[in-house]
Order: sequence, then structure tokens, then C-alpha cells
Amino acid sequence: MKILGVLGGMGPAATVAFLARVQALTPATGDEDHIRVLADINPQVPNRHTQPEAAGRTLGEMAARLKAAGAEVLAMPCNTAHAHAGAIRAAGLPFIDMVVETARAAKVGGARRVGVLATPGGEALYAGALAAEGVEMVRLSEADQARFMMVVFGVKAGDVGPEQRAAMRDLAEALVAAGAQGIIGGCTEVPLLLDADDVAVPLTDSAEVLARVCVAACL
Amino acid sequence: MKILGVLGGMGPAATVAFLARVQALTPATGDEDHIRVLADINPQVPNRHTQPEAAGRTLGEMAARLKAAGAEVLAMPCNTAHAHAGAIRAAGLPFIDMVVETARAAKVGGARRVGVLATPGGEALYAGALAAEGVEMVRLSEADQARFMMVVFGVKAGDVGPEQRAAMRDLAEALVAAGAQGIIGGCTEVPLLLDADDVAVPLTDSAEVLARVCVAACL
Repeated sequence: MKILGVLGGMGPAATVAFLARVQALTPATGDEDHIRVLADINPQVPNRHTQPEAAGRTLGEMAARLKAAGAEVLAMPCNTAHAHAGAIRAAGLPFIDMVVETARAAKVGGARRVGVLATPGGEALYAGALAAEGVEMVRLSEADQARFMMVVFGVKAGDVGPEQRAAMRDLAEALVAAGAQGIIGGCTEVPLLLDADDVAVPLTDSAEVLARVCVAACL
Repeated sequence: MKILGVLGGMGPAATVAFLARVQALTPATGDEDHIRVLADINPQVPNRHTQPEAAGRTLGEMAARLKAAGAEVLAMPCNTAHAHAGAIRAAGLPFIDMVVETARAAKVGGARRVGVLATPGGEALYAGALAAEGVEMVRLSEADQARFMMVVFGVKAGDVGPEQRAAMRDLAEALVAAGAQGIIGGCTEVPLLLDADDVAVPLTDSAEVLARVCVAACL
């Protein structure tokens, strides 16, 4: 069994939901069957959009500290922050890439056109990862992208009510209307508002994919 | 703002619920308002009942590692493991004592006789902490104590269904029937099965108390 190091806090609620997901996906009849997780839940990582250099520096330091504390595999339940995967890998531990794994998982069902619910930064990463899989990406319109960010920031303020859920469902439906044969929940706040039942096409949740790959890597 | 170090994994689900509780009790309108938490979710801490010396050694090492990683205040969402508070304090950081804080909180409502839902080890700690507050402790009968342990180990195996909830409610009711004017949920698995509404007297949940004191100490 390997010790999983988690670079978390982006956002805090998404990290806790991810940790619960890792446990739910671990076959266990008692405490000792679960994976040991060292989590740095750091909600003060500099803004990934406006201060990318500072964010990269902080994430690199977090990775190095997790390694020093005993982590053997690293993961980060925040898609947008994967722009700094290089700074994290520099710590010298295997880093499970959530974006790459999710793009791969979304292709499994046979979808050729996949819609992505993500921040602008996350969308840019998925554009590359889906292209590498030969899958066409369906983007949110500019207005919907702005609405998506509003909803995500609402979650970070604790707003996960029916109105926010309806808004996230509408955004997913807009992607389906634009031709998506599958949807990627490409932001770890998405599963806090959207279930597979809410969408007419298969939903690939990046947090779920990452949790699954982490369990397989550490057990 | 201080960095909170969490000695977790006893059990894993209780730790994740505790982390969610800390966030829920933090006034926040965005990520950056939350407390940074370094959590060592270690489900392989040796058994606190059968291997106390090994458990103490491991918990001392975890505390030292959390300090080295940057933690400034320590907390442990497991009542039973507080038998090793000394080994944790030896790391040299302030350690918030969940048992002491919970006993104090249970007294606030004016209860003179308080029932405790805890493991045998946890019960022994609450006996001391409640005596220090001048509060009489109502214990589970021997048969109910055995049933309590069954339910707790069920939670650790993922069993949190209606049957387990009913069993936990029955145990709380037995304490009330024995004269308890308040109940302490003195095991972090208890709130996964029992809500305040389930009991006729005030319920003091140790995980909730610890989360509240942690937020106050770190903000």
C-alpha cells in the first residue's frame, strides 16, 4: 500500500468530497483497509488565473513538503491547477494527472464529441488532453462560461442549493444541445451540483476518475 | 490565521466528516477564508485498545511530522486515541483536547448527569474529564457497551443504514432512561448515525465541539 499525498484546498469542499470518494471506492471492512492520505488542504494557494507564477511556486512547495512527510504518490483534485503539473512533478514523485485521466475515461464510452464544464484555464488543459485522445471538444459559449464561473464561485461560498443545481444542469444541457455525446465534469466543484442522472448523455466526473485512479495506484 | 494539523484516520470516514464540519463552521465567502489544514489520515494507526504502546509511538511520530510540515495547532478527531495525548503533546505544539472540551461543553446546558456514548477507552477518559467538571457520568450497561462497539465497527465497514441508526438511537435512549440529562457523542463515529433530533435531551457531539474549538483557535 502506498501513501497518497493530496494537494488540496482548491476549493476546500471539493477536496473533502474527493477524500470521501477515495474512501468510498476503497474495498474495506475496517479502518486498516483504507489508504493512508496526507492532505495539504491549502485554501490560500494564490489565484490560479491571476497569479499563475505564485500559484506554481506554492504548489511546488506543497508537493515537496508532502514528499518530505512521507507521500509516495501525488494527486490534486483541482483541474485548473493542473496548469502547474510541471512544478508539482519537480518534487520527484509520481503525479496522477487528473485532466489526462479524465479525457481518457470520457473516450471509453465511444463519444467522439465531448462537452467540458470547466474554468477557462481548465478548458485550455482539456483542449489539449482531448485532442491527444482524438476527441473533439464542445465548449461552453462565452456567456455560459461566465455563468459557469458564477456558479463555481457560489459553491466556494457555500451555495449548493437547488438554484445552483438547476444552473449547472442548464449548462450541461447547453453542451448537449451543441452536439456533445458526453460531458466532462472538468472542475471538482461540478459533482457538488451535478449527478449522472441530471444529464442525458454519459457524465465523466473528473473527481471520480481521479479517486479511482488514486485507489488503483495506492492499493 | 494558524495552520491546523489533524491526526486522522481513526476512522477515515469520521475524519472526513470532521474536516467538512470545520469548513461548515468557518465563516467564508471564498476559498481563501478557510483554514489551511494539514491532515494525516492514517487508518493504519495500531489498535488503540490492544496495542496501546505502538499506537502512542505512531501518534507521536504523526504529530512530529505534522509540525515539521508546518502545522501550528494539533487536533485529533478520535476520542479513544486521546489516551495518547501525552505522546502527541511531546511534539511541542498546542494540542486541543477533544475530551476535555466536550466535557466542558456538555456542562454548559446545566446538566448534572451526562450519558456517554463511547468506546471503553473513551469512557475511561470521559470519566476523568466529567469528574473534573463536577458532572456525574451515566455509563452504558455492559451489554449496551458491546452493542455500541458492534455499531461503531459497522460504521468503519461502511454500514450507516437505518438499522445502525436505530441501534444508536436505542443506546442513547437507554442512557436517558438511566437518568442522563444530556448525552455526549463521545466517539467520532456517533454523529455519522445520530442527530440532535434523535435524542430527547441535549446531544453534545465531540466532533462538532472539536471543530468549533479548532476554528476559534486558528482563525
